[in-house]
Amino acid sequence: MSKLFIVGIGPGSKDYLTEKAKNVVKNADITIGSWRAINIFDDIGEVIGLDVKDLQEKLENAVDLAKNGKKVCVLSTGDPGFSGVLKTIKKIAENKNFDQNSIEVIPGISSLQLAAAKNRISWDEANIMTFHGRENISDILNVIDNGLPTIALPSKSVKDMVKFLLDNGIDENRKVTICEKLSYPEEKVITTSLKEVLDSNFSYMCVMIIY
Amino acid sequence: MSKLFIVGIGPGSKDYLTEKAKNVVKNADITIGSWRAINIFDDIGEVIGLDVKDLQEKLENAVDLAKNGKKVCVLSTGDPGFSGVLKTIKKIAENKNFDQNSIEVIPGISSLQLAAAKNRISWDEANIMTFHGRENISDILNVIDNGLPTIALPSKSVKDMVKFLLDNGIDENRKVTICEKLSYPEEKVITTSLKEVLDSNFSYMCVMIIY
Repeated sequence: MSKLFIVGIGPGSKDYLTEKAKNVVKNADITIGSWRAINIFDDIGEVIGLDVKDLQEKLENAVDLAKNGKKVCVLSTGDPGFSGVLKTIKKIAENKNFDQNSIEVIPGISSLQLAAAKNRISWDEANIMTFHGRENISDILNVIDNGLPTIALPSKSVKDMVKFLLDNGIDENRKVTICEKLSYPEEKVITTSLKEVLDSNFSYMCVMIIY
Repeated sequence: MSKLFIVGIGPGSKDYLTEKAKNVVKNADITIGSWRAINIFDDIGEVIGLDVKDLQEKLENAVDLAKNGKKVCVLSTGDPGFSGVLKTIKKIAENKNFDQNSIEVIPGISSLQLAAAKNRISWDEANIMTFHGRENISDILNVIDNGLPTIALPSKSVKDMVKFLLDNGIDENRKVTICEKLSYPEEKVITTSLKEVLDSNFSYMCVMIIY
């Protein structure tokens, strides 16, 4: 039976893999994902590694393989349903007339959840936002002063987000926590002020919490 | 070293446990949780089972044990940071002068994530709300017509939520999906209309998606 699994692998470390994700990958005919994602599975069969450049092409390939009767897994960092590949795959499936009911999503721990956990924040009382892949980040201004912490996946970089906030009149002394490379050995969690962020450098794998 | 772990176990089945949750529980001096939660761990030491009636007392007990130098785990269904026990524990810790930095939160898959996954919804474009333990559910009216699906953990029962919506002028033909006992063998996912829900019975373990 044709089946396309979109598998959430969590923030990146093996520690946050679920049994479900491991079993689905173990039983797949082929698994497609970044090498970083592929490499955290101990029990995995045929794989196709992808990078940002050929992402669209390889995801289309994944849908074609599933249409041809293969059991295909696509790996998604975090949760496929939060800033993950679910949207992209659904679009491709629609274009290719692949039955949406043959798509099964396996949820994973989003990095926003780990960021909230590390800072002991209940995210049912937080603004949670993703700006990944978005040019327009002005939505953040609608919520930034509503009294709740804002947990955001930045668009390009933490610095760009902070510049945007300062340009729009947000207090430069506002408290912010940057969670970098969560779940990896190089993980860093730094609490500082917006203005201090401008003088620092962060990787692209960050979650910001603005208080 | 005093340490209190709040461990997210996911929606209920073993399938959604993370390696991290299993390791933390395995290495704890004592684990406190509902029997339903305790029973999904294969490798677990001393346990204290709790039920709704003695929840507060046993959680206070957990903090006392951690204060006395034990490595204590408190199990939380779903994610402790989304409608989980994190808030309650933080309050108890404050009252008992237990250092908040000795609390470590292990995130888990929330049932809202599994509900979104089962229905292939990207929850970064959804209203996500919890009404667990809340009498006032009127907040839902602020978002119900904003064009996004609303994924909600009901307050008392699905029926009460639906009655409230109908009493407040929401169209009885509005499409709704009820996800019951997610991840358990008895799992059911039913898509129907608000008015049909009034004639059905659901358990208290439900997630609602209103389109």
